[in-house]
Amino acid sequence: MLTLRSSPASPFGRKIKIAAAVLGLTDRITVVATDTTDPQDSIRRENPLGKIPTLILEDGTTLFDSRVIAEYLDMLAGGGIIIPAGMARFPQLRLQALADGIGDAALLQVYETRFREEEHRNAAWVENQAGKAARGLAALEAAPPAFDDKPRIGEIALACTLGYLDLRFDGSWRSGHPALVAWLDAFAAKVPAFEATRFKG
Amino acid sequence: MLTLRSSPASPFGRKIKIAAAVLGLTDRITVVATDTTDPQDSIRRENPLGKIPTLILEDGTTLFDSRVIAEYLDMLAGGGIIIPAGMARFPQLRLQALADGIGDAALLQVYETRFREEEHRNAAWVENQAGKAARGLAALEAAPPAFDDKPRIGEIALACTLGYLDLRFDGSWRSGHPALVAWLDAFAAKVPAFEATRFKG
Repeated sequence: MLTLRSSPASPFGRKIKIAAAVLGLTDRITVVATDTTDPQDSIRRENPLGKIPTLILEDGTTLFDSRVIAEYLDMLAGGGIIIPAGMARFPQLRLQALADGIGDAALLQVYETRFREEEHRNAAWVENQAGKAARGLAALEAAPPAFDDKPRIGEIALACTLGYLDLRFDGSWRSGHPALVAWLDAFAAKVPAFEATRFKG
Repeated sequence: MLTLRSSPASPFGRKIKIAAAVLGLTDRITVVATDTTDPQDSIRRENPLGKIPTLILEDGTTLFDSRVIAEYLDMLAGGGIIIPAGMARFPQLRLQALADGIGDAALLQVYETRFREEEHRNAAWVENQAGKAARGLAALEAAPPAFDDKPRIGEIALACTLGYLDLRFDGSWRSGHPALVAWLDAFAAKVPAFEATRFKG
């Protein structure tokens, strides 16, 4: 049995849960809730960075971050499934990097509010992060990624990032991005794990 | 010719320069200096996240982030060279994620000082980032990664992160980590590109 250290609201943890479902590996993974803010949580021994998701293998070896875990699960399932082989990898890896980057920029905006009193917040910093997310969404809106029935890692990452924007920014991205809204609806219809992993906090 | 958007002090850009040198691809890449803080710099069109390194292919396609670029260059050089094939990938990818994560934590500490006046800095945030870096370095000090003559992506990433700590934190990591200091000396002796890419700002 593999152990996934994650938390229900983490977009990067959700990426792994959906990847596992698409790869037919859900039954081989136990998800263990993790509090990264608790110094006593074993996550800081399992992953010195103290970050989720972290995967613990049967021999105790740990793997992180989400991109490495996704690649490991893909290989465990036979390889080339959610991460294509050869040059076809790169459009997916680029899309994953873009989606994860939008997610990181969103997360940093959330942290600014969560960890700093209003008078200590830095508008230029927040604006800089918001700009990354806005440009990323605009690029994706102009050309939403095509995919057939089986999603790959870039598409899974994008769905999780959009889900995170819904969760933390009240879906405010939706009004300006109708093509991405349609894209996410199509993704959710094809990939039941998307709805199944939604955080209902 | 490939174009690498980077800047001389970027640890992640340095990772790509060293990877290219190890792979024998340096002559195929033109490095173009990038100011990520300048809204007029074309980097925000090449990479919506506005981040370096970004690689521009001959057909205008762009690739990012550094992990994706490293994998692309490895494949261009024949594959399996700095990123091993099969299950041997994962120790290298994990090491890269750990080294990059220490670098990210260091970068966020630098940004806290660079972009915020002293009274707006958040000690708990800085301490949290410093803790990630400290635990990461302690884990690596306890078991520095073994490598033969040819470095792989995890080792290259670690060398770049330690170089960044030298640059921005005045080498303060060195006193508590003698095994890592010896490791970095051995890396520098085997990989001339490390010294050749040092930022002398």
